[in-house]
Amino acid sequence: MEAIRDILEKVKAGTVGVDEGLGLLKGQFYHDVGCAKVDLHRERRVGYPEVIYCAGKTSGQVTAILKAMLEREVNILATRASRELYQEIREICPDARYSPLAGAVTIRRKEVKAPPGYIALVTAGTSDLPVAEEAAVTAELFGNRVERIVDVGVAGVHRLFFNLETIRGARVVIVVAGMEGALPSLVGGLVDKPVIAVPTSVGYGASFHGLSALLAMLNSCASGVSVVNIDNGYGAGYIASMINNL
Amino acid sequence: MEAIRDILEKVKAGTVGVDEGLGLLKGQFYHDVGCAKVDLHRERRVGYPEVIYCAGKTSGQVTAILKAMLEREVNILATRASRELYQEIREICPDARYSPLAGAVTIRRKEVKAPPGYIALVTAGTSDLPVAEEAAVTAELFGNRVERIVDVGVAGVHRLFFNLETIRGARVVIVVAGMEGALPSLVGGLVDKPVIAVPTSVGYGASFHGLSALLAMLNSCASGVSVVNIDNGYGAGYIASMINNL
Amino acid sequence: MEAIRDILEKVKAGTVGVDEGLGLLKGQFYHDVGCAKVDLHRERRVGYPEVIYCAGKTSGQVTAILKAMLEREVNILATRASRELYQEIREICPDARYSPLAGAVTIRRKEVKAPPGYIALVTAGTSDLPVAEEAAVTAELFGNRVERIVDVGVAGVHRLFFNLETIRGARVVIVVAGMEGALPSLVGGLVDKPVIAVPTSVGYGASFHGLSALLAMLNSCASGVSVVNIDNGYGAGYIASMINNL
Amino acid sequence: MEAIRDILEKVKAGTVGVDEGLGLLKGQFYHDVGCAKVDLHRERRVGYPEVIYCAGKTSGQVTAILKAMLEREVNILATRASRELYQEIREICPDARYSPLAGAVTIRRKEVKAPPGYIALVTAGTSDLPVAEEAAVTAELFGNRVERIVDVGVAGVHRLFFNLETIRGARVVIVVAGMEGALPSLVGGLVDKPVIAVPTSVGYGASFHGLSALLAMLNSCASGVSVVNIDNGYGAGYIASMINNL
Amino acid sequence: MEAIRDILEKVKAGTVGVDEGLGLLKGQFYHDVGCAKVDLHRERRVGYPEVIYCAGKTSGQVTAILKAMLEREVNILATRASRELYQEIREICPDARYSPLAGAVTIRRKEVKAPPGYIALVTAGTSDLPVAEEAAVTAELFGNRVERIVDVGVAGVHRLFFNLETIRGARVVIVVAGMEGALPSLVGGLVDKPVIAVPTSVGYGASFHGLSALLAMLNSCASGVSVVNIDNGYGAGYIASMINNL
Amino acid sequence: MEAIRDILEKVKAGTVGVDEGLGLLKGQFYHDVGCAKVDLHRERRVGYPEVIYCAGKTSGQVTAILKAMLEREVNILATRASRELYQEIREICPDARYSPLAGAVTIRRKEVKAPPGYIALVTAGTSDLPVAEEAAVTAELFGNRVERIVDVGVAGVHRLFFNLETIRGARVVIVVAGMEGALPSLVGGLVDKPVIAVPTSVGYGASFHGLSALLAMLNSCASGVSVVNIDNGYGAGYIASMINNL
Amino acid sequence: MEAIRDILEKVKAGTVGVDEGLGLLKGQFYHDVGCAKVDLHRERRVGYPEVIYCAGKTSGQVTAILKAMLEREVNILATRASRELYQEIREICPDARYSPLAGAVTIRRKEVKAPPGYIALVTAGTSDLPVAEEAAVTAELFGNRVERIVDVGVAGVHRLFFNLETIRGARVVIVVAGMEGALPSLVGGLVDKPVIAVPTSVGYGASFHGLSALLAMLNSCASGVSVVNIDNGYGAGYIASMINNL
Amino acid sequence: MEAIRDILEKVKAGTVGVDEGLGLLKGQFYHDVGCAKVDLHRERRVGYPEVIYCAGKTSGQVTAILKAMLEREVNILATRASRELYQEIREICPDARYSPLAGAVTIRRKEVKAPPGYIALVTAGTSDLPVAEEAAVTAELFGNRVERIVDVGVAGVHRLFFNLETIRGARVVIVVAGMEGALPSLVGGLVDKPVIAVPTSVGYGASFHGLSALLAMLNSCASGVSVVNIDNGYGAGYIASMINNL
Repeated sequence: MEAIRDILEKVKAGTVGVDEGLGLLKGQFYHDVGCAKVDLHRERRVGYPEVIYCAGKTSGQVTAILKAMLEREVNILATRASRELYQEIREICPDARYSPLAGAVTIRRKEVKAPPGYIALVTAGTSDLPVAEEAAVTAELFGNRVERIVDVGVAGVHRLFFNLETIRGARVVIVVAGMEGALPSLVGGLVDKPVIAVPTSVGYGASFHGLSALLAMLNSCASGVSVVNIDNGYGAGYIASMINNL
Repeated sequence: MEAIRDILEKVKAGTVGVDEGLGLLKGQFYHDVGCAKVDLHRERRVGYPEVIYCAGKTSGQVTAILKAMLEREVNILATRASRELYQEIREICPDARYSPLAGAVTIRRKEVKAPPGYIALVTAGTSDLPVAEEAAVTAELFGNRVERIVDVGVAGVHRLFFNLETIRGARVVIVVAGMEGALPSLVGGLVDKPVIAVPTSVGYGASFHGLSALLAMLNSCASGVSVVNIDNGYGAGYIASMINNL
Repeated sequence: MEAIRDILEKVKAGTVGVDEGLGLLKGQFYHDVGCAKVDLHRERRVGYPEVIYCAGKTSGQVTAILKAMLEREVNILATRASRELYQEIREICPDARYSPLAGAVTIRRKEVKAPPGYIALVTAGTSDLPVAEEAAVTAELFGNRVERIVDVGVAGVHRLFFNLETIRGARVVIVVAGMEGALPSLVGGLVDKPVIAVPTSVGYGASFHGLSALLAMLNSCASGVSVVNIDNGYGAGYIASMINNL
Repeated sequence: MEAIRDILEKVKAGTVGVDEGLGLLKGQFYHDVGCAKVDLHRERRVGYPEVIYCAGKTSGQVTAILKAMLEREVNILATRASRELYQEIREICPDARYSPLAGAVTIRRKEVKAPPGYIALVTAGTSDLPVAEEAAVTAELFGNRVERIVDVGVAGVHRLFFNLETIRGARVVIVVAGMEGALPSLVGGLVDKPVIAVPTSVGYGASFHGLSALLAMLNSCASGVSVVNIDNGYGAGYIASMINNL
Repeated sequence: MEAIRDILEKVKAGTVGVDEGLGLLKGQFYHDVGCAKVDLHRERRVGYPEVIYCAGKTSGQVTAILKAMLEREVNILATRASRELYQEIREICPDARYSPLAGAVTIRRKEVKAPPGYIALVTAGTSDLPVAEEAAVTAELFGNRVERIVDVGVAGVHRLFFNLETIRGARVVIVVAGMEGALPSLVGGLVDKPVIAVPTSVGYGASFHGLSALLAMLNSCASGVSVVNIDNGYGAGYIASMINNL
Repeated sequence: MEAIRDILEKVKAGTVGVDEGLGLLKGQFYHDVGCAKVDLHRERRVGYPEVIYCAGKTSGQVTAILKAMLEREVNILATRASRELYQEIREICPDARYSPLAGAVTIRRKEVKAPPGYIALVTAGTSDLPVAEEAAVTAELFGNRVERIVDVGVAGVHRLFFNLETIRGARVVIVVAGMEGALPSLVGGLVDKPVIAVPTSVGYGASFHGLSALLAMLNSCASGVSVVNIDNGYGAGYIASMINNL
Repeated sequence: MEAIRDILEKVKAGTVGVDEGLGLLKGQFYHDVGCAKVDLHRERRVGYPEVIYCAGKTSGQVTAILKAMLEREVNILATRASRELYQEIREICPDARYSPLAGAVTIRRKEVKAPPGYIALVTAGTSDLPVAEEAAVTAELFGNRVERIVDVGVAGVHRLFFNLETIRGARVVIVVAGMEGALPSLVGGLVDKPVIAVPTSVGYGASFHGLSALLAMLNSCASGVSVVNIDNGYGAGYIASMINNL
Repeated sequence: MEAIRDILEKVKAGTVGVDEGLGLLKGQFYHDVGCAKVDLHRERRVGYPEVIYCAGKTSGQVTAILKAMLEREVNILATRASRELYQEIREICPDARYSPLAGAVTIRRKEVKAPPGYIALVTAGTSDLPVAEEAAVTAELFGNRVERIVDVGVAGVHRLFFNLETIRGARVVIVVAGMEGALPSLVGGLVDKPVIAVPTSVGYGASFHGLSALLAMLNSCASGVSVVNIDNGYGAGYIASMINNL
């Protein structure tokens, strides 16, 4: 509210005219109701990436958006991108890099300050890796260190225990699992940190494209587990990054 | 087919008349297509209980069925029975016993030969106990020894490990769990015996009255897990008894 | 692993016998696989509450558990408790307090160190208040400061903007909403902090007891939103407390 | 009923014979029970388009129907049409125009009188544009002015506020959104006009092909919101046109 | 924007101080982002009712809200109200009236200007009448004339045809139906006005509490049909009133 | 059409005036579009019952409808009627009879001509009897002979074979089953007559109130099976009566 | 039972040996429990077709089955057959005919006696024609006369009334509809014959591949409507043929 | 625990150093919490196969895993494998064999000791054969004898009775069925052995990709039936093998 008072003071003092003051107030207004999100983020959190969700966009649309972003020298993350799309992107941005497992393109133009802690990324099976890697690429582009613990599903629980110390040392844990989605409950019972559970559409029959894993995670009997959408690796990486930066 | 040949031989020899042979064949006929199930079981497996599912039956109907059964001196199991129903049953059968936890009435009139092995009955939470106890009462009335391991849900997995030797020593394992239904997967990965998973309707919200646990169990990534209906403790006890008697 | 090496050194040196060493290893063993969770928490984070989920438990069961807990002088939270149950609890514990809105009983025996930040608790409608209050009571018993912003549903979005500064000042935000469950998306787009979304079963018709709100929250187009089970105020308070204490 | 009385008068007067009167009555009859819909519309609302839903029809079927329509010199709208189909249509109708975004072919042969007001068409994300454009093309062919406000999803709510005056100036508002489907609730709370909500199948995972958005819209806490089928841009454009012409 | 300019002019002229101007702007500010809905409605459309959804509110909460409303001399509608609640309301407001069929309390304190047209309210069966009456009470309190056509379900379609002229004469049609929900499609094909379809939870078995009717209405093959939530008579009355007032 | 021609002839001849002819045509008109259903049935099929579905109607509504019906001396069937409702009905109609199993009241005032064949009514379990009896009472009041075969579920298939001749002798077969709903498939494979399958809500857990049985019946691998709504005994009795009267 | 008595008499008389009698009884036995279905149909109802469901079968499997059938000189119906499959069939059976609309191959080798009545086949939209034609081809190969009434959906109900006399003249009516599935209710209220309703998967969005139409038909408020599986034209044709032959 | 005591004794005696003891304990430790499953199986049950689920894995991944397995000379089962994948496998392992029906590759390097009993594998229709064969191949590679009884669906129940003796002679029965999934209930009522029910996705329309069969099997009214995931032939073969080896 101080900015608005300041405008009023200037209008009163005559250093700002009424029309000019009207324009200034308009800017403040939209700033206050949320438009600052895009602009101020950039000032406050230098290096944070812009994100493009490529699924359902033509390569022409994606490259047009990219070109506009590249002018501002920000870091960029393009998720759900095919290798073909990456080839087109590289023609306008030769330093773009591609993670084929995650289906993600990353462009680094600014350094991001790394928070001191790290994110543990726990994956149930090898088929869950693409979703997990999307989370990892996201979190890493935000400047986080990510420790990957793969293929530790509940059917061979000893593999999880081999890695407990790494998991417990993290500030926040992402757990990615399909099928019965039991791993987040198990991890949530073993660690004392927030667990972000990501159900995947891995499975068949009554897995119903990830519904089974999703329901299991929502009903987790372990405290500290919250859930994102099926296959939403990006969302999990984003939230974990937020928490790790607190 | 030998019994039919025998009837034909007797008809041919004249020791059995045509009408009498017709009656004998009719009996054999239905026997062959399945009607023997009720009658012959009784001859072959002395002491096996008759079962009444009381839900949706009036106390009058239940006691009428019971009276007919009691004439044959068989063991009897009445599931989903209230304490009020038990009071009425006791008036016609003073040796009837009641498990308030399982909601089950048992009447023992014959000895059942115990198989050498035992059934491990693993329960995730205290709220799952009524379903588990229905399984236990069923299996015990069939003559099985049942080892109960209670309150070993995945959110506190160390409790399960304290009891692994008991579970691994069984011939067959019943696992009862609600909420996210993850326990059968965990147990299935740790033991080398058939696991009968029983989802319960314990939970709230997106547990959808046991659907979440049911789906998780059907999608178990552990081999050796098969599933019965939600809250179907009786069914699990029956199957486990069948397997334990092999 | 250092603790185990230490035991071996002592056994080698003879200061610890084999049987004693076996016992020590056993303790370490279960500690490493997770059993430490209950015990060590108590040592490290003094004052953290024990929790009882009262739904589906008899008052006898609840008071029995409470008596055992009270011997250890811990803080206690009993959720989904009726006023009748509270009356019984007060007879064995006169300093127990009751939040009728949350349906929660709290017993404070130890001071909990408050983290410097606070949790913003945003509620869409007045009917969502019981779930929100369960989250608040939980977080407060864990030592957090909770700022409540009530009745700011999306149908009157100006009410949300009046309170943006309070929401943006928090370290973590809980958003509770039923019906169409749109509020977390809106809040997630306006703040730069993790948002824990709690769908409630408030609504009718095609809200399907909270399914509509749950799906909306899982599909949030705003980054930074994760979701807990329908009506799971306790879970949201627990996670928010974890994050606020990082 | 006057038309029928008129026929009777003429039969009585002998200016119309019994058989001729029978035929006239038959026409009136079906007119009264609804058959007038096709015919009388044409008389009353000159220029209103005929509509062909092309999905699931062969190009041969579509062009056959088109040829019949073209004889009557009406405006024609063909929805869910591919570019290939458009090429075939253009061979028999060179003035046909194609909206690749909407997948719609339009043929204008008559002027439609424009109502004084306009329809605001609000779209949440760029992926929702095809459905929105189908609504726009439909409404425009019916003679309406359509003001498009695109990409104003709830995750960046300031973009909506920049456009509030345009939305509030409309007689009726169409809101198109996928994923969590929250935008209609927000718009419904900000305007004082009927809102037609169109859920789209945009999303993934637990969006379940538009079910999440559909449920959210049906459960909208804002008054004044009604809903059409998932991806039914045509239906929304038709209803909005009806309302705008009142 | 003129109001804001006016404030600035006064601040500049010194007739309004900075702090006072700040307060004035705050009011204007929230007005622009949506808060005007409550306040300005009252200025612009005198007599429009305030609405309380009573389900899930205690009678104490309802009467507290009512008392606040009554001070402003507005019309009031309380939906989902029991007769008991009505008795309590009448003690603080003797002129409150009750529709037992709709379960709605109405309080009229101001005259509402009636629009020239009317709303046709078509109901499939007698069991759908409570939902229909909620729509009627709502629309009437908003000043609309409502023509009720009851019990004209598709299984006796002739009853509908007896009433076609009344339906066709309306500016907007509400159709209320449960079970298979077919009536809106039929009406939509016979009239040339917007149809608001209200599915009801009337039915049994595979009607799934209104889901069957809801899906049927969303899939209506007739143009011009939009849908509100199951049993949402209030919403339909509100939308129809909006349209009738255009 | 002959009746309309006749009216025209009379108008032309002057034996009927224009206004009188208009009235006559109106009657014919509605007759042609379907209104004859109620009236003409009564002429053509003397003794056919009127039906009242009592669920959701007050006893006042039911008795009011009954009184109107009783004036016309038709047979009457009231389904889903409680014993209390029956007591009230008997006061205005002492010859009303009640089937407590079916929850149905019947009033016989006219003789119905019995068709030569009979309906076989096959029931899986004792809990399915209320639905089956509703079908039986319906069919019998329509004048059909009904042969009941009860408790022949697929888990004891020999019981079905004992009764095959009775089933095969019928003109149409009703099969009532809950739980897994397998009986209609089995019967459909053994008989050469139309099978009307009635799923019941009998079961628990994943029976989902009859959904499991309903789906099974719809997917029957046996030809000749069609399905009615869950628990819709009346509908099955009505259809079977229609077929038996062909 | 007479056949079995006859065998016994012959065994007794010595004209049939024991082993031969055993074989004869075996044949009788299976005949009694159901195996007669295939064999005796052929004797009793000469000309009835064998049916092959081609979906999911290789062309090699289909032609192998066909060759075996062709040896017995029966009529044959192959449903869900592609044109490619038909080409292969024609090489081994040049008189095979193909309905591309129904995707059905028919081979006529025997005359079927036509029943005196006919089946009315009512279709809602042109997209429903393939399913309807499968029903027609089935019924016609069984010897029935089928009257097709196409494109009479509820959104243009006058089209239905033009054809009411044809529909009412049938002994049984098949109604095929997708989308909201309302047509069977409407037809069921207008005719006095059994209605077989066939939901189709025609539709989009919330039609959920036919679920919407299926639910609507199961909840039909018109008496006399029974339902088969989604897109099951064959089943409807079979049942209607059964009823038409009564 | 004896192995751990033994290590301690050796450390005490100095025959094992502290670091060496630490390594030995680590091995024991993980062995106790479950890691023994992979390793000790190999020792105890020589010849048991390793399993690869090929769906969703690249051929490169599969062959890499295979190469590692082949070094250990174990039997190997690769499920959900295409013929193309098999060709690649054969290049590195010429003795690999392929079941095109099951889509399974088997490699036998060790003899498995056959248990004395056999598994009965009952299949409803020819379309269910791929799932059944996956079960058969699995069970056979584990050393079991499998008796196949194919095409005995409930619509032609006599086919089942021809084979009852084979089914009853087995120690455990697998029943594979799609569509209405009724066969396990029927078999469960006729035999006295555990029945493993496998729903298949065979069917169309309201079979919902196996959901109908799955629900039917879970609701089986026959005791002794447990269920695995839709199309999970491997799981059924594994469980049946476990039981047959008891």
